[in-house]
Parts: sequence; C-alpha cells; structure tokens
Amino acid sequence: MTTVGILGGGQLARMLALSGAPLGLRFLVMDNVADACAGQFAPMVVGDYRDEAALAEFASRVDVATFDFENVPAESAQWLAERVPVFPNPRALATAQDRLAEKTLFRELGIPVPPFAAVETREELAAALAAIGAPCILKTRRLGYDGKGQFRIRTPADADAAWEALGAQAATVGLILEGFVAFERELSVVAARGRDGEFRPWPLTENWHVDGVLSVSLAPARADAALVERAYAHARRLAEALDYVGVFALELFCRDGELLANELAPRVHNSGHWTIEGSETSQFQNHLRAVLGLPLGDTRMLGRACMLNWIGAMPDAAPVLAEPGGHWHDYGKPPRAGRKVGHATLRADSAGALAAALERVGRALGREAQVAPAVSRLRE
Amino acid sequence: MTTVGILGGGQLARMLALSGAPLGLRFLVMDNVADACAGQFAPMVVGDYRDEAALAEFASRVDVATFDFENVPAESAQWLAERVPVFPNPRALATAQDRLAEKTLFRELGIPVPPFAAVETREELAAALAAIGAPCILKTRRLGYDGKGQFRIRTPADADAAWEALGAQAATVGLILEGFVAFERELSVVAARGRDGEFRPWPLTENWHVDGVLSVSLAPARADAALVERAYAHARRLAEALDYVGVFALELFCRDGELLANELAPRVHNSGHWTIEGSETSQFQNHLRAVLGLPLGDTRMLGRACMLNWIGAMPDAAPVLAEPGGHWHDYGKPPRAGRKVGHATLRADSAGALAAALERVGRALGREAQVAPAVSRLRE
Ligand SMILES: Nc1ncnc2c1ncn2[C@@H]1O[C@H](COP(=O)(O)OP(=O)(O)O)[C@@H](O)[C@H]1O
Ligand SMILES: Nc1ncnc2c1ncn2[C@@H]1O[C@H](COP(=O)(O)OP(=O)(O)O)[C@@H](O)[C@H]1O
Ligand SMILES: [Mg+2]
Ligand SMILES: [Mg+2]
Repeated sequence: MTTVGILGGGQLARMLALSGAPLGLRFLVMDNVADACAGQFAPMVVGDYRDEAALAEFASRVDVATFDFENVPAESAQWLAERVPVFPNPRALATAQDRLAEKTLFRELGIPVPPFAAVETREELAAALAAIGAPCILKTRRLGYDGKGQFRIRTPADADAAWEALGAQAATVGLILEGFVAFERELSVVAARGRDGEFRPWPLTENWHVDGVLSVSLAPARADAALVERAYAHARRLAEALDYVGVFALELFCRDGELLANELAPRVHNSGHWTIEGSETSQFQNHLRAVLGLPLGDTRMLGRACMLNWIGAMPDAAPVLAEPGGHWHDYGKPPRAGRKVGHATLRADSAGALAAALERVGRALGREAQVAPAVSRLRE
Repeated sequence: MTTVGILGGGQLARMLALSGAPLGLRFLVMDNVADACAGQFAPMVVGDYRDEAALAEFASRVDVATFDFENVPAESAQWLAERVPVFPNPRALATAQDRLAEKTLFRELGIPVPPFAAVETREELAAALAAIGAPCILKTRRLGYDGKGQFRIRTPADADAAWEALGAQAATVGLILEGFVAFERELSVVAARGRDGEFRPWPLTENWHVDGVLSVSLAPARADAALVERAYAHARRLAEALDYVGVFALELFCRDGELLANELAPRVHNSGHWTIEGSETSQFQNHLRAVLGLPLGDTRMLGRACMLNWIGAMPDAAPVLAEPGGHWHDYGKPPRAGRKVGHATLRADSAGALAAALERVGRALGREAQVAPAVSRLRE
C-alpha cells in the first residue's frame, strides 16, 4: 500500500486523489485550512507548511510527496525531500516559484521570452522601464497567481502608480518588469515526464484569460505541426534541465508565429483539466504515474474538448449535463468572488459539434461572452 | 450540499464515490466492516444493516440513499425509505433479491426464462427435476452471488448430492431449480433509468464467467440490431414494471438467437465497469445522476473495450499501464481467494487493435486463458 502525500488541499489535490484511487493509492493531504476541498475525499494533516511538527507528521505517513500548491516554501520542500522522495524536486519547484529565476532559465535554454528585468528600487523601475519600454507589466517575482500581484504600465506615466501598488513588495517577494506581449493567442503545453525521463505532452491547448484568470481552454489548439513541435521542444528542454518528474505546464504567448515563454507551472494545470474526459489518460493520473515511476499513459485526445472555468460560484449544471459530451466538475467549495469553484468540459468528435454545444451551453447559462472566443476559433 | 448514502462499502460504492465527486456530492457509506474499501475515500457508518441505531444515524446524515450491496435486508431498505428517498425503490430491490420473484416477474412481462420451479422439500426437488429434466441447477433463492449457493445437477442421480449440499437452506433462504441453458453466449444489458422514466442502455456486453464468477466483459457484443433491440426492450419493460430508478444489469443467456433472462442486478454491475473509460458517461456517474434526478449522460461507446477481472490478488500492473488504452483499477482490498480485488479495462479503436492488446497483456501476465475467449470473438 502506497500513500501519496500532497502539499496543498485544493481542487488539484482533490482531482489527483480521485484519479489516483484506481491505482490502489492512498492519499494524505496537507493544508493550512481544515476545510480544504481535497479533504472531502482524502485524510488531512492541517498545519502550516513551515510548522515542522506538522510537516514531520505528514512525512511519517507518506511514501512519496508532491504538490497541489506551487508556493510551498522552498525550505519546507527541501526539509521534506531529505525525508521522503519528493517530485517534482525542490530545485524545479524553487525555479518555478520565482519569475526571475524561471525567465532567466528559459533564456539560458534558448527558449524565447519577453524582455524582462529585476526591479528592487524605484530607480531600477525607471531604468527597466526605459530599457523595456511601455506597455509593460510590473509583477511580483513570487507568490503571484491568477493575475494577482501584477500592475499594467500602459505609458511611462503609470510608473508611479505601479510603484505605489507593488513597491512595498520589492523587499519581500521581489519584483520583475516584463515587456507586454501583444499576443494573438495564449497556448500551453501540458506534459508529463517520468522518473526515467520519458516525455509525453498532451496536444497543445489554447487558453483565454479574463482579468488574469483562466476562463476557457480549447484542445487541440489550431496550430501547424512545426509550431507544435517547437512548443514541445521548449517544454522538453525545460523539463530535462530541471530533471522534472511529474506533470507541468509551460504557458506560451504566440505572436506572429513566434512563441514566447510566460511561465512554468510545476504541477497539474488548469489548462489540462480537459484531459480527464478528453484524453486517453488524464494529467492527474499521469502525474501520479510519473511520481511513482509507473509507465506513463497515452496522452492522445479523444475528439476535441473545451473546458469552461467557473469562477466565484457554480452555475446551473443542467445545461452541461444535458449535452451528450458534457461533464461537470464541482470542487465542493463554498462560493467566493474570484475563486475557482469548478469547471465543465465539453467533448465532441468534430469542431462543428463542439462549437454548437458551446453555443447551447453559453446561451442557456447567459455566458455567451465566455464561450465566444472558443466558438470563433472552432468556426475559423 | 447533497450527501448520497450508500448501503454497502465495497468496490461499487468506492467507484460511485469517485465518480460522483465531480458532481459536487458528498458520500456516506454504511458497511458492517470498518475496513470496507469504499471507506478509503468516503466517511463511513459501521454497523449491521439490521441495527436500527446505526441505520438511524446513517439516515440522519444523508439526503438520498442507494445500494452497493443488493442483499441489504428488505425491511432495512423499507425502514430507510420511510425516512429518506431510496433509489432503486425497496420493491425493486426485494424482487431482485429473490430468484423466484425475479423469474416470475420476467415471465409475467413476457421476457423468456429457462424453466424453473420453487423447491421446498426433497419431494419437491424430485418433482421439479422430473418436470424440468437434467441438466439443471439447484440454487438458493436469496443471498447467492458469484456462483455461490448453486449445485449443478448433471443427471437425476445427482439429486441427492444437491439436496445434501443445499437442502438445509430450503427453510432459510429458499431454493429454486432452474433448467440448465446450454447457451452460446452470456450477454448483459447495463442501463440507467432516470426519475423521469428516461431509459438509457449502454451497448450490449458479452460476458465470460469462470466458476460462476465474471472473468471478462467485452463491449460492444457482436450482435445484430434486432437482438440488441430485443435485449433493450426486455430491460426497459422490466425497469418500467419495477419503477426502477438508477443503473441495473439484466443478465441474459443467448442460445440459437434466443434470449433467456437469468437475473436482474439492482445496482451498478461488474459487466459495466468498462464504461468508466469506454463510454462518454460511466455507469457510476449515470447511477448518481438518475438517483439525484439529474439529466442522464450519453451512454455511447468510445471505440471498443474489454474488462478483465482480477480475482484473489492483483497481478502486475505494468503490462496494462504500458498499453496505450490500458486502465488499472485496484480496489484497495487485501488479497483473498475468490475475492474481486480489481480489474483492468483495455480500450482501442478497432477490434484488431483490442485483440492485439489483450494478447500482449495475457502473455505478459501468464493469463492467456483468461483473454482467449475475448480475443477469439474479436477475431471472428
Ligand atoms: N508579459 C505579458 N504580456 C501580455 N500579457 C501578459 C503578460 N504577462 C501576463 N499576461 C497576462 O496575464 C495572465 C496571467 O499572468 P501570469 O504571468 O501567467 O501570472 P499568473 O501566475 O497569475 O498566471 C497571462 O496568462 C496573460 O493573459
Ligand atoms: N440456468 C443456467 N444455465 C446455464 N448456466 C447458468 C445457469 N444459471 C447460472 N449459470 C452460470 O452461472 C453463472 C452465475 O449464476 P447466476 O445465476 O448469475 O448467479 P450469481 O448471482 O452468482 O451471478 C451465470 O453467469 C452462468 O454462467
Ligand atoms: Mg499564468
Ligand atoms: Mg449473475
């Protein structure tokens, strides 16, 4: 009997546990809140990741550990890794936690990135702004997620407001200035890498964000084979450089046929949720297979899939459940503004059928705007 | 927040909970043993189904109740149904619990059955044997499963041995004598019926038993449209007669193109496990949708699927996990002779590909004999 420990007890941990149960696995989730939604289906250790006693209890009860939450303190991950096998390894986690380290690595590996510069002071912001030019985005280096910890600088005159908003964090989580990319599309590569180095990407996914939060993912992305191969090559090079084990996502901007790397998510990723029904093997199951050293499953798609994120509160399930390829995912969380509470995946055999299903669901839920970009892409 | 109560905490309850979690459901499982495998993923009430205090606690914590175990005492089901909605209804459960009531209903509904007769005494056995003729099978009316509680009478001379084996149970669970059907094939219809009467069968499944226990299921069964329609019509008529809500299986013998009903399983069924990966909607999710009054999901297949049961102990997972369409299901149970401890499902787009995958797995696990009948059928 193998017990997999998961640091973080959100929907990713929940879906990992649900998808790992058929492998005969047990799970133990650690979170600092007792009502974390993964706790509905797995036992929990409640405690802060920096609480050594809680971490020691967790370590003593698991055979291997992984993450639902990428911002587990690097020292906690390291402490744990000295006691049980931890995948992905703490260095990969630490790199992905820091936008500066991450982008520096991308550049070293020859993966194109938007221009960027570290910013520690108001003067450095001015210098970086002069070098990169507006528009650009000031971001916290660490602990940002779902577009949080970002300030968009449209003209140089916004610099003061940006510093006002984020300057205080320069000394705590650090800041980075990034050139704004007027991308045509956002894409992600979700891929698994096994303990033996086997690399399996899922079909490229196109993503749409609203207010910095993922809203819709569509797979496969419309892209020629050369672009797909380039995206896969970037993801593979990155995973090999970090000796990454498990599933990760590489977020990419696509502009004029060029791919620019945005960030690495060192875990299963929201843009891979469609793999539960849309692929022979889900990202959740393959993450666990990788972490346990089992053979990776086939990542091919079954038809086409579109995922719709539910933010804040769950809409009515009936229109999705009434679709032949409609699948519902309620994370069992209380509603709260801005919170990811669930998603739906629609699957169909053809682009036309998927577009029609999305339109029906959009209309029934009054969410025409959410489905519109995916519908247009499918109709192109 | 809706909590679904499940009476019985085996692998069916476990797979119900895993597949119902995405609907935002919580589960509560009741079983008389504390280490029932569903308890690894759902909270439990441990107690005997006849223990009114335990049943009352269970009732107080659930919004609706259903079954993993068909032999919950009819009075317990009835007691519960007076307190919370119970699906399927206790009458349907009671009918399916008694081979005599079940076969009598089949006959009333015009569903062909093998000849049968109730047996209460040694004299009645002699009379029934004279009427039905050998070969035939003496079975307990109640509480039989996986071929248990059955005695095959090959010639009239076996009657004494049959009575010796089962006669004592005539007064407790009752006995029935059934004509032995020299079937060419065993088939099952697994179907869901909603609260609103909507009826959705999955593709017909062919099954192979070893020592009375299901060994292999293959879907879709090779059958002409007329046979499939006849099987569906029997299942539908039965479900309507019982006002059945949820998933059930109707087991059928096929001989000379004729269908004879064997038994009704008033729950998700082992011959429907392939629906987890092989169908747009699994039997587990549709059972919950039915029980909750939600729209039923699409029951169409994705390619072809074959399920292999693991009895006694789990074999090595690697050969199955290495197959592109290989899916593993370990129920988290300790090994024990004769016990269903897990299954594998192989999925493929063509009959040839599925046969080849089965052969590879059979060879790697030294289970050529188990996969052989499905391989031959696929190669026909
Ligand atoms: N440099 C950029 N140029 C254009 N858009 C950006 C840039 N950085 C971020 N965004 C937009 O904001 C979203 C969230 O930013 P990201 O850096 O991925 O942070 P998070 O960690 O919150 O996902 C991106 O998916 C993209 O839509
Ligand atoms: N009347 C019969 N004729 C031929 N085979 C039978 C008959 N009854 C049972 N069997 C065989 O035994 C298996 C198990 O019997 P069944 O009545 O379905 O009991 P259980 O409740 O144990 O599944 C069947 O699937 C079939 O292979
Ligand atoms: Mg991002
Ligand atoms: Mg049977």
